[in-house]
Amino acid sequence: MTDMVKPYVVGIDVGGTNTAFGIVDANGKVIASSSIKTQQFGADLDAYINELHSALSKLIAENGGIDKIKGIGVGAPNANYYTGNIENAANLPWKGTIEFAKILTNKFGVPCTLTNDANAATIGEMMYGAAKGMKDFIMITLGTGVGSGIVCNGKLVYGHDGNAGELGHVIVRRGGRQCGCGQKGCLETYTSATGIIRSAQELLQASNEPSVLREIPLDKITGLDVCNAARKGDKIGKEVMKSVGVILGEAFADFVKFSSPEAIVMFGGPVKSADLFIDDLKATMDANLMPTFRGKIKVLTSQLKDGDAAILGASALAW
Amino acid sequence: MTDMVKPYVVGIDVGGTNTAFGIVDANGKVIASSSIKTQQFGADLDAYINELHSALSKLIAENGGIDKIKGIGVGAPNANYYTGNIENAANLPWKGTIEFAKILTNKFGVPCTLTNDANAATIGEMMYGAAKGMKDFIMITLGTGVGSGIVCNGKLVYGHDGNAGELGHVIVRRGGRQCGCGQKGCLETYTSATGIIRSAQELLQASNEPSVLREIPLDKITGLDVCNAARKGDKIGKEVMKSVGVILGEAFADFVKFSSPEAIVMFGGPVKSADLFIDDLKATMDANLMPTFRGKIKVLTSQLKDGDAAILGASALAW
Repeated sequence: MTDMVKPYVVGIDVGGTNTAFGIVDANGKVIASSSIKTQQFGADLDAYINELHSALSKLIAENGGIDKIKGIGVGAPNANYYTGNIENAANLPWKGTIEFAKILTNKFGVPCTLTNDANAATIGEMMYGAAKGMKDFIMITLGTGVGSGIVCNGKLVYGHDGNAGELGHVIVRRGGRQCGCGQKGCLETYTSATGIIRSAQELLQASNEPSVLREIPLDKITGLDVCNAARKGDKIGKEVMKSVGVILGEAFADFVKFSSPEAIVMFGGPVKSADLFIDDLKATMDANLMPTFRGKIKVLTSQLKDGDAAILGASALAW
Repeated sequence: MTDMVKPYVVGIDVGGTNTAFGIVDANGKVIASSSIKTQQFGADLDAYINELHSALSKLIAENGGIDKIKGIGVGAPNANYYTGNIENAANLPWKGTIEFAKILTNKFGVPCTLTNDANAATIGEMMYGAAKGMKDFIMITLGTGVGSGIVCNGKLVYGHDGNAGELGHVIVRRGGRQCGCGQKGCLETYTSATGIIRSAQELLQASNEPSVLREIPLDKITGLDVCNAARKGDKIGKEVMKSVGVILGEAFADFVKFSSPEAIVMFGGPVKSADLFIDDLKATMDANLMPTFRGKIKVLTSQLKDGDAAILGASALAW
């Protein structure tokens, strides 16, 4: 994998808020990293690309120059591995189809490969994290939404058109909560950070049960507030986190019947509070599995630092 | 793929009623085939194996002898590709773990490979049928139960332990009908031939709606009876077949979000009456998909003869 002449690759993680990037060596060590604000130029893509080019070029120059860089890998929302394009990403400021890989290839003069952010994190976890060495696993990213990456036979599943792994939009409550995707009852409407907030708001409005969450204006409650409340023994906070475990457990059981993975790896903000829902998750998953699978599927949490998984995963595309 | 010296392979399809086998050439032509009754010796495995050996040896002798045979591929219920064993198959007369591949390898002196019946049919469809040339598709077999085979990146997905593709046991109605697998609400309890019969019985008992199905004793109604009733315009028959389309459509939509297949191919008895439910299936599937996928996933029916798909698929393992 390594290259004596070009020992490094670049990984770029394009997020709704920050665009983080790093230079990575063949051992998966991020030797230098930095970031820019994704939204600072609004819809002006050229200005953003110029800023990214300038900041990344500086980092590259400080670390041996562009001749040491074998390639650039990018993880971004709604990014398609096959086309190299970002397409209609709801959380990014540029609308329509952005030929991101082509633009960066031209700008830096080294090959640039693109995949969606959840897939990039999945590759990072497979090469350097909790799924190291696994040939069959599923990664679930819990954030503003719920993303996923699926590895079968040691390879990421892109599907016919590059859109595989939309497990956040599997329907877990038919006719349930409205999702941004247009459907109702998607997994992400219940188990993302946003879903956790919605659950808390619903429960607070549906009863007069005392709760520390009532000290916060309803529309200001964060996912972390709900986790903290649950940790203090707050009844509503605990009920919300239990529902996260139950719904993830039900969904994971059906995912297992699809690809029979060695493990399901969870990643993202709410996973830092996994202790609040992991027991309910595992018990529900097993209760919804046939005996063949019961007790055999590992449920793991990411072993990589938040920023690193996406940068590392994106960089791995470039080898 | 072909071999000048050993131009043939053998495919064996071990079913609950019949064990069908055939000699197959490199073009996927079944040049000779025959079958024996699977249950004729009850639980006596040795007697069954001797009968299979005798009948298959005769067929082989008539077609150039064992020296022309490169290998034997077997499709059987609850068969594990990794171990070569059949394990606790509910519909076969031999209980526990049967080292089927090992037994046949010793008996015939040529390598024998085993996979489950749905996977064998999937390989048959990929090499010679409706999914020819596809790298990403899902096969759904509707029979007494519902089986499946999943192809990603041109390869069958076996999963970590060989048990991938249990899509008949994905839960489509939480807390719904009791399934033989121990769970409630599995896809197969609604959309298998058995599920179709259950739906008809339920509807007949729940109302006094006139129906041609009332001319048949409730416990003698077959899946074909229900299809025939629907075709004649019978209200209960039509309602049952509509529910098959709706529930398959809902389930298929979630499968698409997993692996983004080019097509979903259906195979088996009830699929001969696919015209009675395919419109509801496609409409429901699209209504439960995000715009990215809508209208893009082909829903196809098998292009292979009933017996041939399994024999051909099993035989393909042997190349």
